[in-house]
Amino acid sequence: MKLADAGELHLVELLKKRFSEESPERRGAAGLVLGIGDDAAVIRPNRGMRSHVLLTTDMMVEGVHFDLRWTTPFQLGYKLVSVNVSDIYAMGGTPEYLLLNFACPGSLDLQQYDRFFDGVGQALQKYSVKLIGGDISSSDKIVLSATAVGSASRIIRRCGAKQGEFIHVTGHLGNAAAGLAIMKNLRKQIQIERDAVPNLQLPWDVIEPVIRRHLMPDAVRPDTFVKYATAMMDISDGLLIDVGRLCKESSVGARIRVDRLPLSQGLIEASGLLKLSPVDLALSGGEDYELLFTASEDVIPGATCIGEITRSGIRVVGPDGKQIKHHPKGYEHFAVQD
Amino acid sequence: MKLADAGELHLVELLKKRFSEESPERRGAAGLVLGIGDDAAVIRPNRGMRSHVLLTTDMMVEGVHFDLRWTTPFQLGYKLVSVNVSDIYAMGGTPEYLLLNFACPGSLDLQQYDRFFDGVGQALQKYSVKLIGGDISSSDKIVLSATAVGSASRIIRRCGAKQGEFIHVTGHLGNAAAGLAIMKNLRKQIQIERDAVPNLQLPWDVIEPVIRRHLMPDAVRPDTFVKYATAMMDISDGLLIDVGRLCKESSVGARIRVDRLPLSQGLIEASGLLKLSPVDLALSGGEDYELLFTASEDVIPGATCIGEITRSGIRVVGPDGKQIKHHPKGYEHFAVQD
Repeated sequence: MKLADAGELHLVELLKKRFSEESPERRGAAGLVLGIGDDAAVIRPNRGMRSHVLLTTDMMVEGVHFDLRWTTPFQLGYKLVSVNVSDIYAMGGTPEYLLLNFACPGSLDLQQYDRFFDGVGQALQKYSVKLIGGDISSSDKIVLSATAVGSASRIIRRCGAKQGEFIHVTGHLGNAAAGLAIMKNLRKQIQIERDAVPNLQLPWDVIEPVIRRHLMPDAVRPDTFVKYATAMMDISDGLLIDVGRLCKESSVGARIRVDRLPLSQGLIEASGLLKLSPVDLALSGGEDYELLFTASEDVIPGATCIGEITRSGIRVVGPDGKQIKHHPKGYEHFAVQD
Repeated sequence: MKLADAGELHLVELLKKRFSEESPERRGAAGLVLGIGDDAAVIRPNRGMRSHVLLTTDMMVEGVHFDLRWTTPFQLGYKLVSVNVSDIYAMGGTPEYLLLNFACPGSLDLQQYDRFFDGVGQALQKYSVKLIGGDISSSDKIVLSATAVGSASRIIRRCGAKQGEFIHVTGHLGNAAAGLAIMKNLRKQIQIERDAVPNLQLPWDVIEPVIRRHLMPDAVRPDTFVKYATAMMDISDGLLIDVGRLCKESSVGARIRVDRLPLSQGLIEASGLLKLSPVDLALSGGEDYELLFTASEDVIPGATCIGEITRSGIRVVGPDGKQIKHHPKGYEHFAVQD
């Protein structure tokens, strides 16, 4: 069987099963608290320590995760830091350190390399994170990976959601996917990091947040949500896929209300221009890096309630309460895209 | 300027300078102890904690670090763990956890993927390390990276060597380079992990350690050397390059005695067959993953004394004490190979 036929989620499941014997959860004792399967791994270096050390790693491959025709090296560096920091935030943690691997062709211009690390540097500063190590290698295409290290006195896992609780998300959904759709049409770089206003068919102030969410997403700080959240993760592969993951870990179901989805003006205008469905983008578009969490409260400042936790199954309902057919689409490596 | 003209060491230096402001060493306090520039970064999660947390990351790119024509997926998985564990050992630490990133084409066979993780699993077991996270992605070529996490009550850095001390190495030098040379000639896989004895022109028991050092190196435990070592690192890019790094960090020089270099019987026989200089392989061959350390003692069980720390300059001398001309060759990404 080829990996393309197995699918990424299946491959991760295989590894989780395979290495879970070696990754028992041991609460209280020094050692591993949480292994494969959440946004970050959690260790407690010393017995009795209140603080946990969180570890997460993510990679970005040229031609798969990014396209230099419409992504500047600066944006790439910024995004690499953000996506790793987002996983630490998604556990309720504070990011502290980053290790970074950089592989690229020898023909890459040193200026591009510098601009990449300018972007890394700006993001590090934003999140108060220190770069402490890494590796540089040659390769045909640019391949990046980073490992973020953070800390938390209390961690918020994916497995804590209970029936009757409310589902919340931060910010807007589908912006990153709409931004990607715009950039795929443009096929040229926009120097968004230098406030260069491009000549587009849509007003820049409306469309800028959408494009920025794709090119230079900011990870969302969990600080004001941790006191409410019973389960939390970041939305990286699309709302429905990620709600499905949270529900699976919590052994519950979910009802998502389409009319509650937070859609930005930019998403709606971009969707109109590109003849895309804003609701589809919000349900299935990946890389929003917004926080998804559950809570017993239905009104939480800074977040939008988009549905409820049910006993089982993931249902999407319209304004009339009737179920809408959907497939939990989203980006999956090795998946046959339909 | 292209990266190929800048050279890897220069690129690392640039980053070290750039991010060093953000990586101050703060001994005693909680936080960062050691940033970019040694085998691993060191943090102390809690104030007053005696134990340090060590972090290191390394990547392996198909066509650059390995060739699947003569490396099995099992060997690749094993080696990825070993090279990361080696960096933890090289700080005097104990490896504990690993995060792993795996990118490959969707056309890869699931069986190959499984064999890769068999190799990872065997190495994890050998080093008592737990896999706690990672990321899977698609890519044109196989790109791997891993981050190892370890601990140490006392760390041994590269910067502690003093004039008059002795230079020691573990095991044999040049084996990995000779093994690579043999495999480049063979251009076929050897199932060394299954004790399959191939039909070679050299006796298998003599040549096996040489080939194994290239395909499936074991990281060297520092336990018996830490009480002697004033500075330590692992030899990944070649003895002379790495001695140069240790000396630079310690602001000293070195005299390497050619007649003291520990050459294996396999290295000598392979060099004869392939018309290579065993001394050149020992001085400049990369990926030996042996430990290099300095100590005030000249006889240390389990290690070989190969020279002395001097005031400045790296000199290689023959049996008659006369200097031998050499260039500090070794593997450097983006370097113009001569």
